Amino acid sequence: MADRAPAQLIDGKVFSERLRAEVAVEVSRLRAEHNLQPGLAVVLVGEDAASQIYVRSKGEQSLAAGMHSVTHRMPADASQHDLMRLIAELNEDPLIHGILVQLPLPKHLDEKPVLAAINPDKDVDGLHVVNAGRLASGLPGLYPCTPMGSMILLRETLGDLSGKRAVVVGRSVLVGRPIAQLLLQADCTVTVAHSRTQDLPAVCREADILVAAVGRPRMIRGDWIKPGAAVIDVGINRVPFDDPEKAAAGRTKVVGDVHFKEASQVAGWITPVPGGVGLMTVAVLLQNTVTAAKRLNGLA
Amino acid sequence: MADRAPAQLIDGKVFSERLRAEVAVEVSRLRAEHNLQPGLAVVLVGEDAASQIYVRSKGEQSLAAGMHSVTHRMPADASQHDLMRLIAELNEDPLIHGILVQLPLPKHLDEKPVLAAINPDKDVDGLHVVNAGRLASGLPGLYPCTPMGSMILLRETLGDLSGKRAVVVGRSVLVGRPIAQLLLQADCTVTVAHSRTQDLPAVCREADILVAAVGRPRMIRGDWIKPGAAVIDVGINRVPFDDPEKAAAGRTKVVGDVHFKEASQVAGWITPVPGGVGLMTVAVLLQNTVTAAKRLNGLA
Repeated sequence: MADRAPAQLIDGKVFSERLRAEVAVEVSRLRAEHNLQPGLAVVLVGEDAASQIYVRSKGEQSLAAGMHSVTHRMPADASQHDLMRLIAELNEDPLIHGILVQLPLPKHLDEKPVLAAINPDKDVDGLHVVNAGRLASGLPGLYPCTPMGSMILLRETLGDLSGKRAVVVGRSVLVGRPIAQLLLQADCTVTVAHSRTQDLPAVCREADILVAAVGRPRMIRGDWIKPGAAVIDVGINRVPFDDPEKAAAGRTKVVGDVHFKEASQVAGWITPVPGGVGLMTVAVLLQNTVTAAKRLNGLA
Repeated sequence: MADRAPAQLIDGKVFSERLRAEVAVEVSRLRAEHNLQPGLAVVLVGEDAASQIYVRSKGEQSLAAGMHSVTHRMPADASQHDLMRLIAELNEDPLIHGILVQLPLPKHLDEKPVLAAINPDKDVDGLHVVNAGRLASGLPGLYPCTPMGSMILLRETLGDLSGKRAVVVGRSVLVGRPIAQLLLQADCTVTVAHSRTQDLPAVCREADILVAAVGRPRMIRGDWIKPGAAVIDVGINRVPFDDPEKAAAGRTKVVGDVHFKEASQVAGWITPVPGGVGLMTVAVLLQNTVTAAKRLNGLA
């Protein structure tokens, strides 16, 4: 493999910027032609530092796309009842088309009834069981952002996916399973592999499209990859620096589920981590909010 | 392959009788210990001859298992409104735990809102989008009968399925996709193949467990099968007799999606058609009704 040209990078920055620009154009059209401004409500309970950053980014990006954007901050000791009441209000609010509850919730709150209470047609995170059912049944719905983002990267890179062999490593309800459903809808022959799979490297080598969604740093090695394959790395794992001095100083960095250095010598296309799928997620969230706004107003 | 012993038959009659006997024991226990008699309501609209036979069989088998059984027959010109009202009544009826609307409905009726109106917790056919979502999300629910029946046959035949490679040919919402979900839940490495799959014979040959759910008579040939594999044939196709005289007389018979004669020389286990998966379907319907009755009464 040493003489193979290194893989082309699938640049999440380029594609997420393009998607956000498309969303902004559509928002502007909806405002001009239908007096409809898609609205996103983000609910944040408590003070978790990472969550604060994510929520701020979602608010800023939705505003930048011309959307109506509201962030509801509740104290860390908010009650289940108060949170449920807020969801009920947002379900009824005609200016809000997308509702996102930032996870994780503080430990005293029960996440399941909160997510179940969101109107499925405003569930822009695609986490509601009704949306999982719509996806499994090939019906229109709101689908999870990271899987949708992965599909956009694949379509932009490969064009028609029909007939390609796709292997998804990981079967989580949030990522692996919905990606498998979306690949099937795109007419791929889809295999779902996981911790119980025998000879995982051989199964991975069957893939024209390899999606890694396991949550184990650099698990997928270069010789697991079919030469020329498209590799989508959904993993986001924080690990110590390779440099022992930096590592000793406690410094960490983010890597994917794929051993990038090895894989990029074999694959045809590969997403970097960071800078790949992760960047698509918020852009798809905005797109989902626009889709929800149109459907709720009979425009799609 | 000629010197290979022919495959062992997976006898749907044996396993469906066993399941019905188990259901009868559980019904009797629920009646004795909890004064709870699981109740199934079957709704038949119109006079379709095949539907009449199916509905009669479901009624008889539920009675034979000791269940409460009601068949609602509506005239062929029944209105959507009347049908919806009946569903609403059955949803509220505390003696009814399972509701099955016999399909197809007469053409003037819209099937989707009828199925969507059934309380998902009484949806013993497992057709409701909420149950599809529960299955896709690994949550308890009521799952479709033919896929569940296929899983029972596999578990009874092979025991633990963990790590086996399963290939499902066909991606229908009613059969192929739910079987794939159930195989994944059983820790198989699952591939879904379909009309767009390239080199389908080679993909099928990867399978330790091959499930055919395509609806094309005898499509899957002997040399598509890995020696020793377990073959589950979900297809039910009516074809002319092979004998040209009988065929000329217009006589037909039922065959599966698998070329049984060839496949049984290669496979380790195989379901016949008829006499295989098809027989499991009503037995699972009864089992689903018992499950629904227990859950609706807080007993499971």
